[in-house]
Amino acid sequence: MSAKNKITTLEELGEFGLIERITKKIKQYHESTILGPKDDAALISHNNKTLVSADLLIEGIHFDMTFTPLKHLGYKAVVVNLSDIYAMNGTPKQITVSLGFSSKYTLEAIDEFYDGILLACEKYKIDIIGGDISSSVSGLVISISALGEINENNMVKRNGAEENDLIVVSGDLGGAYMGLTVLQREKEVWKSNPNMQPELDNFNYVLERQLKPEARKDIIEFLADCQIKPTSMIDISDGLASEIIHLCKQSNVGCQLYEEKLPIDQQTYQTAMDFNLNPSTCALNGGEDYELLFTVKQKDFEEISKNAKLTIIGHITKKESGYNLIGHGDTSIPITSQGWSHI
Amino acid sequence: MSAKNKITTLEELGEFGLIERITKKIKQYHESTILGPKDDAALISHNNKTLVSADLLIEGIHFDMTFTPLKHLGYKAVVVNLSDIYAMNGTPKQITVSLGFSSKYTLEAIDEFYDGILLACEKYKIDIIGGDISSSVSGLVISISALGEINENNMVKRNGAEENDLIVVSGDLGGAYMGLTVLQREKEVWKSNPNMQPELDNFNYVLERQLKPEARKDIIEFLADCQIKPTSMIDISDGLASEIIHLCKQSNVGCQLYEEKLPIDQQTYQTAMDFNLNPSTCALNGGEDYELLFTVKQKDFEEISKNAKLTIIGHITKKESGYNLIGHGDTSIPITSQGWSHI
Repeated sequence: MSAKNKITTLEELGEFGLIERITKKIKQYHESTILGPKDDAALISHNNKTLVSADLLIEGIHFDMTFTPLKHLGYKAVVVNLSDIYAMNGTPKQITVSLGFSSKYTLEAIDEFYDGILLACEKYKIDIIGGDISSSVSGLVISISALGEINENNMVKRNGAEENDLIVVSGDLGGAYMGLTVLQREKEVWKSNPNMQPELDNFNYVLERQLKPEARKDIIEFLADCQIKPTSMIDISDGLASEIIHLCKQSNVGCQLYEEKLPIDQQTYQTAMDFNLNPSTCALNGGEDYELLFTVKQKDFEEISKNAKLTIIGHITKKESGYNLIGHGDTSIPITSQGWSHI
Repeated sequence: MSAKNKITTLEELGEFGLIERITKKIKQYHESTILGPKDDAALISHNNKTLVSADLLIEGIHFDMTFTPLKHLGYKAVVVNLSDIYAMNGTPKQITVSLGFSSKYTLEAIDEFYDGILLACEKYKIDIIGGDISSSVSGLVISISALGEINENNMVKRNGAEENDLIVVSGDLGGAYMGLTVLQREKEVWKSNPNMQPELDNFNYVLERQLKPEARKDIIEFLADCQIKPTSMIDISDGLASEIIHLCKQSNVGCQLYEEKLPIDQQTYQTAMDFNLNPSTCALNGGEDYELLFTVKQKDFEEISKNAKLTIIGHITKKESGYNLIGHGDTSIPITSQGWSHI
């Protein structure tokens, strides 16, 4: 057996051996990390205030190992947490990583998963400061907490949107959902004929949206450069419809979105059509895009319009007007939250 | 059906409904919690530096629902995390709680579990600042992160023990393991005859040690009152043998423990004898006691001796002497880490 294909069970290495192996690979980027792993708790010291978010990802619920490369999964698990810190207009600095592996996972599989985690940490300059490793009864359990830094004056909550504010979204929507749809179709094809090669060539963009999303660090940096402080912000993990309703409810306002403004990538559009799905519905209800949804004052219109990565998709209305989508034929349709509920 | 026995499925309430229901019950104790749940991330501001720890508890690995009351489980899940912060000589202030529930858990079950979490938060004055809720494929997954505050000068790491330092342990050892042993026996009895009532009356203390442990906040306060700063400290989650080896390895020293000094409660002792187990072995290798193990300078001998909750069980030696237990017959036995490995 070649070294590349070596299979090592976790029993051979043991919990402490595994922790030591992983800890050795960790790089530290920030002075604010005073004490990393290796003790009962880590010690950090932010100059500003500290943001904290936590996410739980469970195999069979949030991801399907039959079509999810482990390295991408590790990368994505970090990114979705960082996205929450950016959504407060903050800068993520540290994470804790707690993992539960069932016996089907070899040491090599864990290494691959951790390589994805480390790649995301390198790209976003994140220190891993602790966590936990255990076995699990069924599949992989990933629990990551992210810690970030922010000057409280710059913090953007969900509850600050006001009437006439512009509603802005980064990137494009629905891609991650179409990627998932393609992967699920290929899985069904493969189940009925395991010799069939998956047809994925025409779906690179939507697959990447699903398997290896990015957090919008660039947008937070752009807003800082332009000295634009959004009035409210949230990241789109459960779909645009669900998130705009969160913003509006917490801000005690309504909204009007324009279907023709929804940013949809050409491949997302084409894939939706191929699957007999309405592209706008995919953009509204497809989850996991991890784009930022935020509101700004009208005075910021020009700066926002100049950025090709941002799209103004509507505006904030009075609460009494409700949540509405103006369709292609000028019809007004109430927006309801289908969400992306895992329960 | 009476209100008390009402059964509600999670589908009826939905993810957001569940989060709202839980969030309403949360009390806030600290000014350092600026923004709690309800947004993408929480915001905290500690006057001193911030300690961070994370733990993952998985049904079937870390706990057995056939004999674990949900309320106790919620309480314990918080306590084990706080214990990590105390083990740094810090003060826990906030936690995030991420939970995955399989479909067998009703809303009433989740309420009961959360009541235990809230009870621990009330006792230890802890703010719940966020988390995540999702479904899980099999059983309950609990991931809690704890955040604490500490003046860096007061922080006690694992690596500061020096030759001739006294080795001190709080409370007594082996009880939690004996409680688990009793529960596992009763489970076997019940499996062979479901009409049999469990015999638990004589085991109150060891059962409480297993099912509802406490974190040693009182010891941290005592040390502060006496102005004693331990040279090293760790909490005993995996058993004394495993933890003293951690301390010694990181401090680059050896140790000598005395079997006759090991603090063992009378009920723990009697239960071990009933099960034909060596009480000292239970004290050394039984996990989950969540007592504090620390080292102090000899000058602190008097203050430490005066506290009935603390026992001096040995002293630190040169690294070359290894890790040894002096047995009842003055025999020296090398201490090895059997640990409490979940892998």
